[in-house]
Amino acid sequence: MKNPIPYKIYLREDEIPKAWYNLRADMKNKPAPLLNPGTKEPMRAEELEAVFCKELVRQELDDNTAYFEIPPDIQNFYTMYRPAPLVRAYYLEEKLQTPANIYYKFEGNNTSGSHKLNTAIAQAYYANQQGLKGLTTETGAGQWGTALSMACSYFGLDCKVFMVKVSYEQKPFRREVMRTYGASVTPSPSMETAVGRKILADHPGTTGSLGCAISEAVEVAVTSEGYRYVLGSVLNQVLLHQSIIGLESKIALDKYGVKPDIIIGCAGGGSNLGGLIAPFMGEKLRGEADYRIIAVEPASCPSFTRGVFAYDFCDTGMVCPLSKMYTLGSGFIPAPNHAGGLRYHGMSSILSQLYHDGLMEAIAVEQTSVFQAAETFARVEGILPAPESSHAIKAAIDEALKCKETGEEKTILFGLTGTGYFDMMAYEKFHDGTMSDYIPTDEELAAGFAGIPKI
Amino acid sequence: MKNPIPYKIYLREDEIPKAWYNLRADMKNKPAPLLNPGTKEPMRAEELEAVFCKELVRQELDDNTAYFEIPPDIQNFYTMYRPAPLVRAYYLEEKLQTPANIYYKFEGNNTSGSHKLNTAIAQAYYANQQGLKGLTTETGAGQWGTALSMACSYFGLDCKVFMVKVSYEQKPFRREVMRTYGASVTPSPSMETAVGRKILADHPGTTGSLGCAISEAVEVAVTSEGYRYVLGSVLNQVLLHQSIIGLESKIALDKYGVKPDIIIGCAGGGSNLGGLIAPFMGEKLRGEADYRIIAVEPASCPSFTRGVFAYDFCDTGMVCPLSKMYTLGSGFIPAPNHAGGLRYHGMSSILSQLYHDGLMEAIAVEQTSVFQAAETFARVEGILPAPESSHAIKAAIDEALKCKETGEEKTILFGLTGTGYFDMMAYEKFHDGTMSDYIPTDEELAAGFAGIPKI
Repeated sequence: MKNPIPYKIYLREDEIPKAWYNLRADMKNKPAPLLNPGTKEPMRAEELEAVFCKELVRQELDDNTAYFEIPPDIQNFYTMYRPAPLVRAYYLEEKLQTPANIYYKFEGNNTSGSHKLNTAIAQAYYANQQGLKGLTTETGAGQWGTALSMACSYFGLDCKVFMVKVSYEQKPFRREVMRTYGASVTPSPSMETAVGRKILADHPGTTGSLGCAISEAVEVAVTSEGYRYVLGSVLNQVLLHQSIIGLESKIALDKYGVKPDIIIGCAGGGSNLGGLIAPFMGEKLRGEADYRIIAVEPASCPSFTRGVFAYDFCDTGMVCPLSKMYTLGSGFIPAPNHAGGLRYHGMSSILSQLYHDGLMEAIAVEQTSVFQAAETFARVEGILPAPESSHAIKAAIDEALKCKETGEEKTILFGLTGTGYFDMMAYEKFHDGTMSDYIPTDEELAAGFAGIPKI
Repeated sequence: MKNPIPYKIYLREDEIPKAWYNLRADMKNKPAPLLNPGTKEPMRAEELEAVFCKELVRQELDDNTAYFEIPPDIQNFYTMYRPAPLVRAYYLEEKLQTPANIYYKFEGNNTSGSHKLNTAIAQAYYANQQGLKGLTTETGAGQWGTALSMACSYFGLDCKVFMVKVSYEQKPFRREVMRTYGASVTPSPSMETAVGRKILADHPGTTGSLGCAISEAVEVAVTSEGYRYVLGSVLNQVLLHQSIIGLESKIALDKYGVKPDIIIGCAGGGSNLGGLIAPFMGEKLRGEADYRIIAVEPASCPSFTRGVFAYDFCDTGMVCPLSKMYTLGSGFIPAPNHAGGLRYHGMSSILSQLYHDGLMEAIAVEQTSVFQAAETFARVEGILPAPESSHAIKAAIDEALKCKETGEEKTILFGLTGTGYFDMMAYEKFHDGTMSDYIPTDEELAAGFAGIPKI
């Protein structure tokens, strides 16, 4: 042990933050507003309220309020699985023989297996406050669907989940967890919606994508009385709720006088990364401190590193509002050999703006190297990581190895978003040597870009 | 919230106990010694050392030393996932509308998914100290095999696991977790051992049992240079290591001046229960306090409630020492409809002696009622429990409901040994209504008893 920092730093329950932090309040260049897909005008609150819960629309559109109080019911629910531990990765440091100090915020200690529960419970709370009957959503790897089913069960709401077909097939047990919490689960694209039928007609045999599943879930929400749609990432409101990750991390680090040099998170839609970096990026925006911030995405779905910054549809069916973001085009579907989540064609508009403004970096990594990092991590730190989270592990290990070369004692913080208990089929492929990498060609990307509307 | 006790009580890392407590030191009637299956004489240390690690044999045979210091390497490993939280089940209490105060010690917050890691790391440590190459073992539900593979990986030991065939088939992903940690996994009974071939010849199509798998693992250990056998339950040494569960629980309760009236644990081989109750039973044996202690076993494998107290083989192949315990006979194999663990025909000799002496109670519960309790618990407490642990949940709920009838504000402590992430096939059966209960007939039990040797 290099110093008296414990292996795990747990806050006391009364130290769990009582308010979420809205990073937009400190951004000079605000993220661009959502546009109506018909008129191309900024979406008005009334328009959004047909799809989303009223209070969540307010949070979505508010670029100025810095803090939103966490309602007591949500605070109570948070105490069921929070505070999440901030772990000093002593064993990983020793394995790598690095002078770097590595910390990770572990969000997998709950039955949904990931950080998704932080926003699921908030969204279910506001739906219940509004007197709704139920919620619809999509899920990729299944973590979000599980989280929402747990949250809906807590408030007695109905929960309809459209699950990306490739994950539905690779993760059959995820369905049973959702059923344990009373949700219904449909593989997407499905024949249950008009948009699903159209996608199946145009792309028979598709393994699905988050974009398809979103279209189906939205269609069911807007055509069913007493239902609204909720999304597990990308949206401003989701990043707001996920700020709990970064706020807790910062409190824990501040207790020990530790300031990270590098902050790393995996990025699919951006909610984990946006939540983890929120208070640190806030300091950076206010000129109070500087941090190197790195988004890590899969080479097979490289929105940041190879996408374009443009207004695009959030969903494959083009029924959702347009968002200005780094995108591969709403028709882009990652290669089926890609395991797990982080399959989204776009990216949070908040993170997209920050990246565009040079306030953060992004890298893309290949999946076999990600699973190699996952296995290394599992063997020394004891936690079996989700493939998504392992993108951040891979980048953190690489940065720690650079420190080994230079001798620098940098402090690295990364987000460990969840556990891989339902990803063992992907691990099996890795063990059997049948896992492959795939990097989309420039032609494939150009086909995706061609579908981006001209605005 | 009824009082200022937090939802979760976490000890500080420096409050994790530094010594295991050996309950036998305070027992007036010591558990009967293991007997050599050939001579029927008490096993000598030298004989046991052919099968087990030297230091573990010392712990196994020592009925008098009250505390064994936990070696610093094991203490360090414990900090990777301990202290385990003691949770006040406020949400379950509210759901049940009971005046009872319910607490549970949650041991599932580690990748093995259960309390088994507490002893796995100890056994791997002593094997490594002895300079061994590797360890062999059996696993039922897979929790023990996962725990041992993690522990062996930590010390660079080879790990060979024989997995009860029914679990191997119902829990394919468990195998991949063990492979992630570098273990080899064989479904049992197998053709790889003489005893496996004999069992398959005598019982073609058997779904296996812990007793069979133990025989195979022991055979490989004693016929391979540099290998020893380790067991995840039943033995005195295992209960010694698991005392960490009870010791932490007691420290946490003492901090808040809470004294449990009833202590409940599930019982397969008895290691979780023995560990949980250790310090409380110690006080009871020394006349310092009284507690009602309840073992909960499956109605399909009722060692305590319908077994006999006699010397019997620990394994189906009858190669292991004889242990005096509550047993259904080493040939007893639970009905294949029984989900998950707790499939062992016998019981810890320590617990057997305590039960025989009237110091604890035992009840048997049917599995559909166990899954009903599991689902109720999952929905309000957020944790998806293992089927094994859910036996304790079922009993705790029943006791809390009795308090509701009588108005008594009893304090109930139960052990939540693990998570059910790898048990979703059993949950699926429960959801689909295809799960059934099975209570062995008196004739079936008589057939098992007939195989118990006359000593």
